[in-house]
Amino acid sequence: MKLRLQEAALELYLERGYDKTTTGDIAARAGVTERTFFRHFTDKREVFFDGQAELVELLTTAVAAVPPGTRPLPALRAAFHEAVPLIEHHRPVTERRHPVIVATPALQERALAKHAALVTALSDALRARGVADQPAALCAQVGMDTYAIAVQRWAADRGTGLHTHLDQAFTDLRLAANALK
Amino acid sequence: MKLRLQEAALELYLERGYDKTTTGDIAARAGVTERTFFRHFTDKREVFFDGQAELVELLTTAVAAVPPGTRPLPALRAAFHEAVPLIEHHRPVTERRHPVIVATPALQERALAKHAALVTALSDALRARGVADQPAALCAQVGMDTYAIAVQRWAADRGTGLHTHLDQAFTDLRLAANALK
Repeated sequence: MKLRLQEAALELYLERGYDKTTTGDIAARAGVTERTFFRHFTDKREVFFDGQAELVELLTTAVAAVPPGTRPLPALRAAFHEAVPLIEHHRPVTERRHPVIVATPALQERALAKHAALVTALSDALRARGVADQPAALCAQVGMDTYAIAVQRWAADRGTGLHTHLDQAFTDLRLAANALK
Repeated sequence: MKLRLQEAALELYLERGYDKTTTGDIAARAGVTERTFFRHFTDKREVFFDGQAELVELLTTAVAAVPPGTRPLPALRAAFHEAVPLIEHHRPVTERRHPVIVATPALQERALAKHAALVTALSDALRARGVADQPAALCAQVGMDTYAIAVQRWAADRGTGLHTHLDQAFTDLRLAANALK
């Protein structure tokens, strides 16, 4: 049911635009009542972002499982590698949603808010490993952005796997930061 | 007039909350018509973010003025130092707005969108210096994050100047990234 509503929403956003689509339209296209829509999603933005909870869960669990003594950014890099199968699994739908999100400020803003929530979750996960507040906040932010950049590069270059793009982006980060001496 | 509208908006958001305040309310409190409101701001979110254009201008100009051959992250760090007087000048009003933004998802999302726009502007400024696309995007994102973290630390610790927090945050970035070897 959730998948049918998400497919209906994507079709409508592509056909007539996000702004001109109501939750009632989405429910009708999926062949259900609006009440059913609201049993699955709080609003018409959330239809695109329900995978977030699973990603947060996977990444925070992975950060906790990294061997003790691993420093924060390497710990995050290891956790992102664990998320690769999930990201790859969602790739087809992510790809179809992407142009709609880019074209719709309301969806872009929600995407940024989800990104920010993930940074907070990663920062908490690092602190649970004993990392102090300030480095936890900095590494969570910078690690998350490096991951996002790896995903962007992978979207533009699917010939190279996401694992390789992740390692490359974190290496680029190290080399760029090394110039700060 | 702009300042009066901004002050009126802040008062109303604090008194009754952002959601229960209309642009008409803000105009009335400032003693002007709603039309005057819309001559200055496109919506009731923008009232809090009009300093953005000035910051973008200052930072992109500063990036362009950094000595040739300076690597991307050091170039950004130098540009952020140039922005310190502007940030300090806006500090009193930023401080009063901050709790309202934190408590209001619509304003938080707009703040994140402004942050993202600044990353794009910095990336463009780096590319104008001859930095390739990929490192420009990565350094703009990571540099902007490090700057934002320095500003957060400074908000929590005003005994230390923003210049010092900036240098410290960029040093923390270098040390954290060095563990990625």
